[in-house]
Amino acid sequence: MLPGEKSGFELDPRLESASVPVIWLGLCELRLVDDSRWPWLLLVPQRTDADEMHDLTPLDQAMLTFELNMVSKALKSLTECDTVNIGVTCNTVRQLHVNVVARSRHDPAWPGPIWDNEPRQPYGREARRVFLEKLRAAM
Amino acid sequence: MLPGEKSGFELDPRLESASVPVIWLGLCELRLVDDSRWPWLLLVPQRTDADEMHDLTPLDQAMLTFELNMVSKALKSLTECDTVNIGVTCNTVRQLHVNVVARSRHDPAWPGPIWDNEPRQPYGREARRVFLEKLRAAM
Repeated sequence: MLPGEKSGFELDPRLESASVPVIWLGLCELRLVDDSRWPWLLLVPQRTDADEMHDLTPLDQAMLTFELNMVSKALKSLTECDTVNIGVTCNTVRQLHVNVVARSRHDPAWPGPIWDNEPRQPYGREARRVFLEKLRAAM
Repeated sequence: MLPGEKSGFELDPRLESASVPVIWLGLCELRLVDDSRWPWLLLVPQRTDADEMHDLTPLDQAMLTFELNMVSKALKSLTECDTVNIGVTCNTVRQLHVNVVARSRHDPAWPGPIWDNEPRQPYGREARRVFLEKLRAAM
């Protein structure tokens, strides 16, 4: 079991295949979606009994707020984006996860939403390694 | 000045024209978007100095978490929806606001996102009055 991982929790295979691990936080695993068009992070609470944010215990909700704040600040500072989009849309992948996306006036979907905007553009191995290193340093 | 309204705060005219007031909470005004396809609420923090959720003070972030939890639970219970979508996408309307949307397998955009899904279908005066009354009771 990895640090921060809770017994019995398994990451949804669709989230796993679309993203790579960044760091373990207190409640969530932080992951990077492999799409270089807009830096896109996932916060995945390590809980098996919460389908909605409001299903989390008050303590877990406070933890999520704290982690979301930290991640959003780091992402904005690192990317110098215009704004951070946050989305919880567990319609298809039912496992609770929070999308945190750096949006910029220069990105190809601005100012529209980026959900369901295909095809993705993977980072490439070296560019992804560099971004992950900078992101971890910014946290 | 209405109860809960902060001196100097003015609601963005685009949010105002797209929605109607529901109730004042401690930090936010709660509003209903006038689109009957999916019950859609807005939480608008009464703050002039926060463009992003992470710009809010720690106390305001805790308040927002509390209010979002209350609103999300009430909306799910009232509508018996399948899931609650939450979105913060202040790309065009820069005033910080949180979208809270009841989504159901039977709604016309399921399972896709509903942002930018036009044209809207207004409730009609009586249907909106009834929904607002039930929502206030559920809170």
